[in-house]
Amino acid sequence: MAYRIESLERLTEQFARIPGIGKKTAQRMAFSIISLSEEEAAEFASAIIEAKSSIHLCPVCQALTDEDVCSICSNPARDRSVICVLEDNKAFMSLERVRQYNGLYHVLHGVISPMKGITPDKIKLRELIERIDADTKEIIVATNPTVEGETTAMYISRLVAPLGVKVTRLAYGIPVGGDLEFADEVTLHRAIEGRRELN
Amino acid sequence: MAYRIESLERLTEQFARIPGIGKKTAQRMAFSIISLSEEEAAEFASAIIEAKSSIHLCPVCQALTDEDVCSICSNPARDRSVICVLEDNKAFMSLERVRQYNGLYHVLHGVISPMKGITPDKIKLRELIERIDADTKEIIVATNPTVEGETTAMYISRLVAPLGVKVTRLAYGIPVGGDLEFADEVTLHRAIEGRRELN
Repeated sequence: MAYRIESLERLTEQFARIPGIGKKTAQRMAFSIISLSEEEAAEFASAIIEAKSSIHLCPVCQALTDEDVCSICSNPARDRSVICVLEDNKAFMSLERVRQYNGLYHVLHGVISPMKGITPDKIKLRELIERIDADTKEIIVATNPTVEGETTAMYISRLVAPLGVKVTRLAYGIPVGGDLEFADEVTLHRAIEGRRELN
Repeated sequence: MAYRIESLERLTEQFARIPGIGKKTAQRMAFSIISLSEEEAAEFASAIIEAKSSIHLCPVCQALTDEDVCSICSNPARDRSVICVLEDNKAFMSLERVRQYNGLYHVLHGVISPMKGITPDKIKLRELIERIDADTKEIIVATNPTVEGETTAMYISRLVAPLGVKVTRLAYGIPVGGDLEFADEVTLHRAIEGRRELN
């Protein structure tokens, strides 16, 4: 019988459930929790509960927020004629960090991928179409430059075309096959400047 | 002003405090918590609280345990004449997983390192000396084969010599400069078999 501490194993399992965290790393993380003080561990636990309970999707742009409507959608200084469409919140936060873009966002929470069974109705596309109004002049599709990202961009372009809204795509400053999350700020800056119209 | 969600940032900070977890990984982990269900997040938080509150050091061997005295120290089938001295709980669990060793353990929670200000009184050495009694025949010093590990082994050897207890060291089956935690089971097996007396 191997030496087991059940509560430590349960904690290790919790960490191992996080994508990208293996068994060994999860165990190291669990050990580091044990070495915290009683208050620090309580702080960690309440940070989880608090983040989970206070954060939800903005009903307009679908980005994560802890307010009724996110601070970008509710900001009157933002340009309401442009909507930048993103795959996920990580891409959204990367782009917002550049501080060059002053329009609105829309987070899809996924990309169309028939291989993985992700059909257009499984991502926040309906919400995008519904929010397009007379003010909307341009939609920048900033999905990642992968097959799924391109497919999604083409799909949006066809969907939006009848509405008379211009659809653009970020310029290929982003390395092809890469992930928006890991692009540096200069590259993202270039990509915003050189965006091109989809035809 | 960048887009900020305070509770998400607090959670990211908590993950980033774990040794070996960088800012980007911490953010990914925080996002994965947000994508959990309400119950899963509560489970994660309670696993932290429970592990922290139920786990403490065994008063005899200083290993982590959720019992009054750990299941190894309280097991009458274990050979009480041998004590295997380890740097930390990760090494302890690795060794116990081999199931070849039937003696007792002692976890130091560190190694002597004058460079880092870790003097002999900062690790569980006093507790080791205090538990040596008439039953104790041998102490296997299984600290990692690093400069600090060797220093600690020599220190223990000199401390224990007057008590007439044999002090041995694990055989160099372990790759020099490596870490006990990452040794495979066969290597650990060889290391236990080929242990040699310190002189």
